Amino acid sequence: MKTISTAKAHGGIQGVYSHHATSTACEMTFAVFTPPVAEGRKAPVLWYLSGLTCTHQNVMDKGEYRRLAAELGVIVVCPDTSPRGEGVPDEKDSWQFGCGAGFYLDATQAPFSANYRMYTYVTDELPALLAEEFPQADMERQGIFGHSMGGHGALTIALKHPDRFRSCSAFAPIVHPSTAHWSIDAFTKYLGEDRNAWREYDAVSLIEDGKRFPELLVDQGAADGFLDDGLQPWLLEKACADAGIPLTLTMRDGYDHSYFFISTFMDDHLRWHAERLKA
Amino acid sequence: MKTISTAKAHGGIQGVYSHHATSTACEMTFAVFTPPVAEGRKAPVLWYLSGLTCTHQNVMDKGEYRRLAAELGVIVVCPDTSPRGEGVPDEKDSWQFGCGAGFYLDATQAPFSANYRMYTYVTDELPALLAEEFPQADMERQGIFGHSMGGHGALTIALKHPDRFRSCSAFAPIVHPSTAHWSIDAFTKYLGEDRNAWREYDAVSLIEDGKRFPELLVDQGAADGFLDDGLQPWLLEKACADAGIPLTLTMRDGYDHSYFFISTFMDDHLRWHAERLKA
Repeated sequence: MKTISTAKAHGGIQGVYSHHATSTACEMTFAVFTPPVAEGRKAPVLWYLSGLTCTHQNVMDKGEYRRLAAELGVIVVCPDTSPRGEGVPDEKDSWQFGCGAGFYLDATQAPFSANYRMYTYVTDELPALLAEEFPQADMERQGIFGHSMGGHGALTIALKHPDRFRSCSAFAPIVHPSTAHWSIDAFTKYLGEDRNAWREYDAVSLIEDGKRFPELLVDQGAADGFLDDGLQPWLLEKACADAGIPLTLTMRDGYDHSYFFISTFMDDHLRWHAERLKA
Repeated sequence: MKTISTAKAHGGIQGVYSHHATSTACEMTFAVFTPPVAEGRKAPVLWYLSGLTCTHQNVMDKGEYRRLAAELGVIVVCPDTSPRGEGVPDEKDSWQFGCGAGFYLDATQAPFSANYRMYTYVTDELPALLAEEFPQADMERQGIFGHSMGGHGALTIALKHPDRFRSCSAFAPIVHPSTAHWSIDAFTKYLGEDRNAWREYDAVSLIEDGKRFPELLVDQGAADGFLDDGLQPWLLEKACADAGIPLTLTMRDGYDHSYFFISTFMDDHLRWHAERLKA
């Protein structure tokens, strides 16, 4: 692991690191905020997965998570959203596919299957690195959240790992990417035409297929331009109701899809996770 | 005035606007955060002046001021740091002069004197526009703060307008640009070789020449790489002590010159200003 930068912030350290990832066959960059922790003590780990077009940096710059994460004593880990670099296939003109749009899945279709393995990267390789490099990270206490495509990542990963994650929440998540206009193209190219293979990476489908999580928190801006044709949180609401999963879904009047929305409700989400991670 | 963007954030509105400025003879962009204000009520105005290389956007993205500004009911105005655009003379290779480096002064030297009039822009033209376009802005209650070059701007402008501003603070300000290595070149080009003309735009010199302000708050990162050869807050400390100006200067262990430092102490500064602006 290489340290790209570190800076003291709100009493903790905001670091940016990189490493050669085997799963994605490229150099990967990620951000870690470590709160002030007493010598020898461990802190719970909260994963934040970002949305389309983002890197690790967007939430680091605009997420406004450090003040309260420092106060609550939570480590916040922010991975990149896709493989990147020379040799990684990409479609430069599309913001919904390729670099910046990994969708937290393992691609099965050539040529994307060689690098686009963000599911394995985020669930296996990066956690292993984190445990090794950050001894203060308590891997027995993990939570996960994210925004938009990263909300999709958080929901699907939590549903598949209810024993690993004690808490899950999302800002404006893509809850049913198999049917959302902005993800169908990506899912087809990454996973092929057989839509049965898509269900593994679709929160609503996973719940329909029997996956469960103890409870979920979702905030959604009511003025979000992607609400009706991409996000459709009511599909998650119905799936959770049918499956008996407690979902706290709040529509936020006047808020859009940006980090102005995310940063506004960041405190609520951090407190939600901290309550469930502290025990 | 043109509205470039608005977004709801922390219950208020973060807007970005532009207008053709007469003083700088170019289109100027600025950001305004308006907290939730009851119909017909006014809110105090806090000016944030940014540092070298910045636009209005850096603090808007990374300053973490909205949560508490909304709670305290303070309008935060963030101007750009220089004139910009076609026809504005610039030195593309320098980050300490030209675009992004207006130093909040009125240049007297050709060809810069046609556009580099940020002192008049920030103290006259933009306040007039603000008063006209934002009826909720209470121009009777104004405070000013800033970072680095913007800290220099805040200190010098407050010292010259103690009747207009009720509060002034700075993060890692350039307190004595006449003697700091990174501003001598800019001052020479903007103001000419006669260093007497520089004293108008130098906080330490202004205090030496008799300008006063009721009290000042300064935070400075002790791990700031510019501390010894650019910032030198002890020069302000001495000038304030000699002049009897109460200065609260705190060295912050481990903090650098970045927005990680600024955002950490943003709450302290907002509360400092709000206490003095509320009355």
